[in-house]
Amino acid sequence: MTHMTTNTIPEKYMAWLKGRAFAHLATLMPDGSPQVTPVWVDSDGVYILVNTARGRQKDINMQRDGRVALSIQDPDNPYEYMQVRGLVELSTENGARQHIDELSVRYTGHAYQGSPDQVRVIYFIRPMYPIDE
Amino acid sequence: MTHMTTNTIPEKYMAWLKGRAFAHLATLMPDGSPQVTPVWVDSDGVYILVNTARGRQKDINMQRDGRVALSIQDPDNPYEYMQVRGLVELSTENGARQHIDELSVRYTGHAYQGSPDQVRVIYFIRPMYPIDE
Repeated sequence: MTHMTTNTIPEKYMAWLKGRAFAHLATLMPDGSPQVTPVWVDSDGVYILVNTARGRQKDINMQRDGRVALSIQDPDNPYEYMQVRGLVELSTENGARQHIDELSVRYTGHAYQGSPDQVRVIYFIRPMYPIDE
Repeated sequence: MTHMTTNTIPEKYMAWLKGRAFAHLATLMPDGSPQVTPVWVDSDGVYILVNTARGRQKDINMQRDGRVALSIQDPDNPYEYMQVRGLVELSTENGARQHIDELSVRYTGHAYQGSPDQVRVIYFIRPMYPIDE
């Protein structure tokens, strides 16, 4: 696996982060135990972006403790995968509704169907520790 | 999502655990941060079974702290998924080589191709906290 020694995400992984592969996002519960759920994923080339709704367990967890990990398989070959540990460096509600619509179009072909009452939030995750197994 | 109030795993999820879907297994690093990787998965109806090699990060992590989480998507519909938090209740090397061969045949159609020097270990995970989002 390519090691990320700079701030930029290797091209090979960018294709997965901008495609239709799901990421499995691990966060920490209040008692320190892990939680993991599938999520849509995005990247700006520096950060890995995850968009969730306010009040979900992963939102609560990332607000409290920014240490996360992600696992993403190559959609064409599940034995090729990216795993990364990282830190939430910032989160924002600004543009998050538009962002979830963009993600929804990419993953499903149509605009996001969630309740209009949902408050969306984007988490910016900085990859810190790619590891091999 | 069906809540597991007993020790037995719901039939719907057993199909995924006995099929060819990957699980994404989250464990805890020494500093308490999460790690997550795709793994083959199995079940005896009570425990979720994961088979790994001695010395891998997930092996080291689970030996030290048995708190884990798994996320598994329905191979036919990624928007149906199982997520569970659980505890490693036991682990054993007994039968683990035969078990990885069985898993390999199920997932790939052929016997396991890993080094014969590998020491394999089966982890028995008891599901504790299924949650919804």
